[in-house]
Amino acid sequence: MHSFARWILVLIGLTLALSASAAKDPNEDAIKARRAVMTLQSWYAGPLFQMAKGAMEYDAEMAGIYAAHLNTMANVEGGAMWPEGTDNGAYAGKTRALPELWTTWPEAGKKAEALSEAAAALAEVAGDGLDALRSKIGAVGKACKGCHDDFRAEKM
Amino acid sequence: MHSFARWILVLIGLTLALSASAAKDPNEDAIKARRAVMTLQSWYAGPLFQMAKGAMEYDAEMAGIYAAHLNTMANVEGGAMWPEGTDNGAYAGKTRALPELWTTWPEAGKKAEALSEAAAALAEVAGDGLDALRSKIGAVGKACKGCHDDFRAEKM
Repeated sequence: MHSFARWILVLIGLTLALSASAAKDPNEDAIKARRAVMTLQSWYAGPLFQMAKGAMEYDAEMAGIYAAHLNTMANVEGGAMWPEGTDNGAYAGKTRALPELWTTWPEAGKKAEALSEAAAALAEVAGDGLDALRSKIGAVGKACKGCHDDFRAEKM
Repeated sequence: MHSFARWILVLIGLTLALSASAAKDPNEDAIKARRAVMTLQSWYAGPLFQMAKGAMEYDAEMAGIYAAHLNTMANVEGGAMWPEGTDNGAYAGKTRALPELWTTWPEAGKKAEALSEAAAALAEVAGDGLDALRSKIGAVGKACKGCHDDFRAEKM
C-alpha cells in the first residue's frame, strides 16, 4: 500500500482510539490530565517519603530513579491543563481545585515553581544516601502541602 | 524550630495528604498510576494528531513541546505499575488490561518499547514542520494501537 494511504489508515484508527477515551467537554480532558500529573507525582514521591521516614528500606537505585521521575512530573508542560472556569464549583465532583487558584493567580504558579525547584534539588541527591534524601525531601513535602492548603478543597 | 523537628512536621503533613488519596489496595494505586501515564500520553499526543490531520493549525513550538512530553511519558519508569494479577478480571471496572498482557509477557513490553522508539523519533522532528511531524507520527499511532488491540479490552 502507498505509504500515505497507510498513514491515513493509521490516523483513522488512532483517532477512533483516542476519541473513545476523550471526554465530550475538553475541560474534562484538561481536569483528567492535571489529575494524572498529580497521581504520578504522588506515585513517584510515595516510596521516597516511605524511605525517608524509615517505612521502606533505602534503595539508592530506586531512590534515584523515582526522584528523577518525580522531577520530570514536577516539570511537565501543564499550563493548558488548568483552563479558567474549571474549579470545584463548575466541575463539582470532578476536581478539588478551588476558584482561588485562578482568582489569585500567579500565586498557584509560584507554588508549582516551588515544587519544580524542590524536586530538582531532591533528584540531584536522592541516590547518594538516606541522609541526602532526607535533607531535600522536606522541601518537596512543603511544596505539595503549600499548594494543597491554599488551592485544594478538603473533599471532592 | 529545630530543622529536624520541622522536617518531621512536614513529613506528617505530607503523609496525611498522601494517604487521603492513596487506595487501601496498593494494586489500585498501581492501576491508577498506569492509567495516569496513558492519560498523559493521550493528552500530549492529541494535538499532534490533530495537527497531522489538519484539524488544528500546525504550531512548531507547541508541536515540539508536546512531542517532547509525549516522549517523556513514553519513557517513564512504569514497571511497578503493572503488578501480576491486576487484569480486568480481578479488577473489573477499574482497568481494561487483559490477562494476556501478563501471560504472553514480554510481548506487551515489546509494544511499550515500540512506543518509546516511535515517540523519540517523533520528538526529534516534530518542531521542524508539518511534513516532518507527519513523517513520524504514524509510527506512534501504530504503537498505541498495536498494544491496545492485543492487550486492552473493548470496554471497562
